[in-house]
Amino acid sequence: MSYCLGIKTAAGLVMASDSRTSAGDQVSVCQKMYLFVKPGERVFVLVTSGSLSLSQSVVTLLDKDFEAGAGLAAAPTLYDAARVVGDTIRRVGEMDRQYLERDKFSFNVHFIMGGQIKGAEHDLYLIYPQGNPLRASTDAPFLQIGETKYGRPILDRGIKYDSTPLEVASKYALISIDSTMRSNMTVGPPVDMLLYKADSLKVTHHRRLVASDPDLKEIHTRWEQSLRRAVSELPPVQFEEVENEIEE
Amino acid sequence: MSYCLGIKTAAGLVMASDSRTSAGDQVSVCQKMYLFVKPGERVFVLVTSGSLSLSQSVVTLLDKDFEAGAGLAAAPTLYDAARVVGDTIRRVGEMDRQYLERDKFSFNVHFIMGGQIKGAEHDLYLIYPQGNPLRASTDAPFLQIGETKYGRPILDRGIKYDSTPLEVASKYALISIDSTMRSNMTVGPPVDMLLYKADSLKVTHHRRLVASDPDLKEIHTRWEQSLRRAVSELPPVQFEEVENEIEE
Repeated sequence: MSYCLGIKTAAGLVMASDSRTSAGDQVSVCQKMYLFVKPGERVFVLVTSGSLSLSQSVVTLLDKDFEAGAGLAAAPTLYDAARVVGDTIRRVGEMDRQYLERDKFSFNVHFIMGGQIKGAEHDLYLIYPQGNPLRASTDAPFLQIGETKYGRPILDRGIKYDSTPLEVASKYALISIDSTMRSNMTVGPPVDMLLYKADSLKVTHHRRLVASDPDLKEIHTRWEQSLRRAVSELPPVQFEEVENEIEE
Repeated sequence: MSYCLGIKTAAGLVMASDSRTSAGDQVSVCQKMYLFVKPGERVFVLVTSGSLSLSQSVVTLLDKDFEAGAGLAAAPTLYDAARVVGDTIRRVGEMDRQYLERDKFSFNVHFIMGGQIKGAEHDLYLIYPQGNPLRASTDAPFLQIGETKYGRPILDRGIKYDSTPLEVASKYALISIDSTMRSNMTVGPPVDMLLYKADSLKVTHHRRLVASDPDLKEIHTRWEQSLRRAVSELPPVQFEEVENEIEE
């Protein structure tokens, strides 16, 4: 399992991914964040969940086209860029899908792409295994793929498109991933975190947090303490006195 | 969808359930908490998720047997009581399962049963649609059914069998349900909360919180504020300076 997310606020983007990958009982580490950058002109950050074999093929093809000045290098808008990722997923589907399904594997690969092309706003898309894109909105300013539920309540409560500063959004992203790693052992470190400031058109802020990273441990411990304190400060649940029956 | 949970600590039990039920686009309210009590001798609290039709049948049969002094009324241990629930699920399965599956509905009904029989410790079981029981342990002192993931991280972090007082556990249970209702619209109020003190052998503390309940609103609002403050007090994520590349 994987867990990746992207957050879009007025100030920019935060992208985050775990690095655990498993095939059967083989568990290993693999980075799930990829950059495609032409400084000053275009920036794309991709994170991915699903079959590692499939996402590697997609990224390999995207890379080849990008180097040749096509694909993501030529997309006129971010919507077109999301379509490039979707078309590339479909190309891989043409190669692999029927052979996977013949052996009862599903064709499962998801991407989140955040980025910006000069002259347009930064934006954030989720691209499904079918190749169709979904755009983040100001009402729903984050997108998740993989093991999404454990880490969602904290994002639901914290992220506001207009008002959440990027530095704060990156804390929410890290807590969201940390909560997921706590509840699902198949999501694991290192955690890749990337912060993109709107209109910078370059990538300058990245952090890879390994399991033993003291910052990761500190955030984990302090968050747990803060939650406990927050619960203790809540008013108690007021119970009503009943006698072995409850009203229906 | 439903969300129900049970928490077992050294001091007793907390049981909680939402009340939303849906069949297709028909959404309505239905209590999912049931009591079977012989004061001073035995107490069982059941919460349920899955098909309402199936859980109603199970409870109807359990009720009939209980009134006749059999089933839950006669089970010598709590393990046997969990087996009674499982056997009753199997009886309903014999009646309904093949007809559901013929029309591609799955036989889906889950129960959590908390309770105590005089002379033995209070305990907590989950009973699967197949009828087999799973017991809560001191290491895993809570059980969930239905839409379980959104509300799990807060329980993972807060509930300790030995040390969490029941009043605090009931706050965790309510936050867990509130988080789930926030993230999944098919889980909804009223919320039934029940607190059982070990060795009391009677049910005295129950609360039903409707959507407009000021206590529910206060907990919801204060929790959201507390989370935001907790995030703001965390140290910022320290990014490393990179230049359009990240190490693999």
